[in-house]
Amino acid sequence: MTLSDALTALADPVRRTIVKELAGGPDWTRACGTFDLPVTKATRSHHFAVLRQAGVVEQRDVGSRRLNRLRRPEFDAAFPGLLDLVLGERRASPGES
Amino acid sequence: MTLSDALTALADPVRRTIVKELAGGPDWTRACGTFDLPVTKATRSHHFAVLRQAGVVEQRDVGSRRLNRLRRPEFDAAFPGLLDLVLGERRASPGES
Repeated sequence: MTLSDALTALADPVRRTIVKELAGGPDWTRACGTFDLPVTKATRSHHFAVLRQAGVVEQRDVGSRRLNRLRRPEFDAAFPGLLDLVLGERRASPGES
Repeated sequence: MTLSDALTALADPVRRTIVKELAGGPDWTRACGTFDLPVTKATRSHHFAVLRQAGVVEQRDVGSRRLNRLRRPEFDAAFPGLLDLVLGERRASPGES
């Protein structure tokens, strides 16, 4: 995990939405398709790949579903305070980035 | 200042280099042209504009020089810990992002 990858991953508003939703529920309960995101399926897959490669999320395939876990303790240990800033951000209004 | 702009500004390695160099000296002593950056003059100007618009740096024209100040107290108040992560990052090796 590098700070560069972490900042790049979290600089995108759609990816921050994914992170906030994951933080709101138990690990391994959310499949990628269950997030209400204003993007195509290909773009959605790209966003999850960026989050995974940056070490923000971990994924596990269960049947036809790809389940997610926010790597919160690992990420907090590597970059103290960074996820807290994202999770504390107010939800952006439509049209805002 | 928004978290989105702050993360975008700091996600770039050249901009993090500028921030680290500014943190190493007194306010208002570094002109934009004094940073040793592997980019064109136009790209350099773009990077400073992004940092300024995100509220990371403040600029002041003195004669023909554009001097810079890292808005550290303001930025720390808005996004606690974020600049510390950047300033604590080891200097990237050539070729690394």
